[in-house]
Amino acid sequence: MTKYIKKAVQELAAYTPGEQPRERDIIKLNTNENAYPPSPKIAEVLRRPADALRLYPDPVCHELRNVIANLHQCRAEQVFVGNGSDEVLALCVRAFVERSGSVGYHEPSYSLYPVLAAIHEVETRPVSLGADFSWAMPEGYAASLFFLANPNAPTSILYPKDMVRSFCKGFSGVVLIDEAYVDFARENCMDLALSMDNVLVARTLSKSYSLAGLRVGYVIGSEVLIGAMYKIKDSYNVSRLSQEIALAALLDRGHMERNVARIRDTRDRVANELRGLGFGVAPSETNFLWVKPPPGRTAQQVFEDLRKRKILARYFPGPRTGEYLRITVATEGEMRALVDALR
Amino acid sequence: MTKYIKKAVQELAAYTPGEQPRERDIIKLNTNENAYPPSPKIAEVLRRPADALRLYPDPVCHELRNVIANLHQCRAEQVFVGNGSDEVLALCVRAFVERSGSVGYHEPSYSLYPVLAAIHEVETRPVSLGADFSWAMPEGYAASLFFLANPNAPTSILYPKDMVRSFCKGFSGVVLIDEAYVDFARENCMDLALSMDNVLVARTLSKSYSLAGLRVGYVIGSEVLIGAMYKIKDSYNVSRLSQEIALAALLDRGHMERNVARIRDTRDRVANELRGLGFGVAPSETNFLWVKPPPGRTAQQVFEDLRKRKILARYFPGPRTGEYLRITVATEGEMRALVDALR
Repeated sequence: MTKYIKKAVQELAAYTPGEQPRERDIIKLNTNENAYPPSPKIAEVLRRPADALRLYPDPVCHELRNVIANLHQCRAEQVFVGNGSDEVLALCVRAFVERSGSVGYHEPSYSLYPVLAAIHEVETRPVSLGADFSWAMPEGYAASLFFLANPNAPTSILYPKDMVRSFCKGFSGVVLIDEAYVDFARENCMDLALSMDNVLVARTLSKSYSLAGLRVGYVIGSEVLIGAMYKIKDSYNVSRLSQEIALAALLDRGHMERNVARIRDTRDRVANELRGLGFGVAPSETNFLWVKPPPGRTAQQVFEDLRKRKILARYFPGPRTGEYLRITVATEGEMRALVDALR
Repeated sequence: MTKYIKKAVQELAAYTPGEQPRERDIIKLNTNENAYPPSPKIAEVLRRPADALRLYPDPVCHELRNVIANLHQCRAEQVFVGNGSDEVLALCVRAFVERSGSVGYHEPSYSLYPVLAAIHEVETRPVSLGADFSWAMPEGYAASLFFLANPNAPTSILYPKDMVRSFCKGFSGVVLIDEAYVDFARENCMDLALSMDNVLVARTLSKSYSLAGLRVGYVIGSEVLIGAMYKIKDSYNVSRLSQEIALAALLDRGHMERNVARIRDTRDRVANELRGLGFGVAPSETNFLWVKPPPGRTAQQVFEDLRKRKILARYFPGPRTGEYLRITVATEGEMRALVDALR
């Protein structure tokens, strides 16, 4: 009885998350999870009695926001905590885009952005990236909300901060800088969120903090923008355990930084090895590589060959992305297996 | 810079969850949390290593949906699991209500319903309840989606199933029967969701399963309606721990049933005691009481008197609700303290 379903939802092509294979012996390089475990401090949180779960969580995450505010040198009122940064992104569309408004993003970028616009039934205004997926923005470009993944995914490339700043300055709508991977990069744009009225910076604990399973992301910006998001979120959007575990992880930043350093080392070495094998590798500022096979082998062939050897990469069919593979940088051992397989 | 905020959001009066006091020595009877701890089996889940948190959760909760499907004798495709039933309710508006559509609900009922409609910028079509908050529905009533809390909150009253069935049969839109409190009631409407195209039944683990802090709710209905909700949810809406803990709780149903039996005993005894003191008490089928003070004392006065004695009830100002207090049924000891204070 599809008559009950909203037309835009009937027509929607839903976002497809990367495969979560059930086989245990697979090398999983397809969803950019962190290769290393999260902070050992989390075990202490899990040892607390479960009885407190009978009580609702703090609906506005006071304690967690204070810790995040302290980390980024801002006020707690400038911090929104969500059920993963997915929730944060969806709320931005609902809070900042009128029905007559529009959502912008680069192509290629995170493929969830157009889906969020479609769910909300608003116009999309995609901007094609330049050669080698470099920054591009047409003169006089406008939209109500621009999703700017930086570093970008799936390309792994960081846009220079000066370029981002001058774009935000000239933009008439809200810019959400999605810094999911920024802990793996050489610089970040957090100060833009703290100094400009129309800029938000989103972070997640899924990547650098090794907590994709937890679903905690946050966004920082002016109190006015953050306040609007609080008005429309689900009443109790972050569970008690998620709040407590996130707190433990953020207070053990050193652990995260050590994991990130290891992954960056591995990343840079593997990138060079692949270049030596004739692959094109974008200059990655993330925990993954954006890789173009040498002439004579298509990305799809390489993807399928790897799959046969129980190595799972991510392949995005399509005119530009279809020439590349996105490969998560995992442990040394897993990366050795990858390089051997590609050789 | 409010110009960035969508107008409907600027004008919105956000939903206010019940107060979560920081004082430790307060008797908390204001948010209908369960007085007793959740299943002891949850401790086993929490003893598992936290390392798996680095991986994304199953985006569609396969295992959990199989267990829920088994519990209600339906197929897993008829089950949607959300980040609390709050998420489930919000998704219903997004999936089933066109921009030109409308959302219906009783007055008084769960005060989140009109807020969800306002966020989505659609018309509301409230229906005033009859005398003593009994079922009422005007001839020829229509809406795209009707939120039907049964038992109702804050009134604690169960609408007879025959009445609900005949309403659903004649209704042209989707009916979401919100059974948050139904485990405390003498009957439920699950079979309507399993037999009618336009009926969904929502459940939560927050109340009877003592897991308000966990944020897991689910909804059951036809595959078509459930499929639409999956298309538009956030990619990974339920965390790994939430899925695993919910599984453990649902597989230990006996624990929940014992807690529910205790609370029902306490509820019925306290209701009689309060009636003996001259209070009006609605026939509760929930874990709370809807109480009208004896002549000469206003509900607000009683609320404030209790607050001074460190007992926190819930008071909803307004023409009809303002004559009552909503009081959670907690432990025997806490209820003794309540009755003593009211005496």
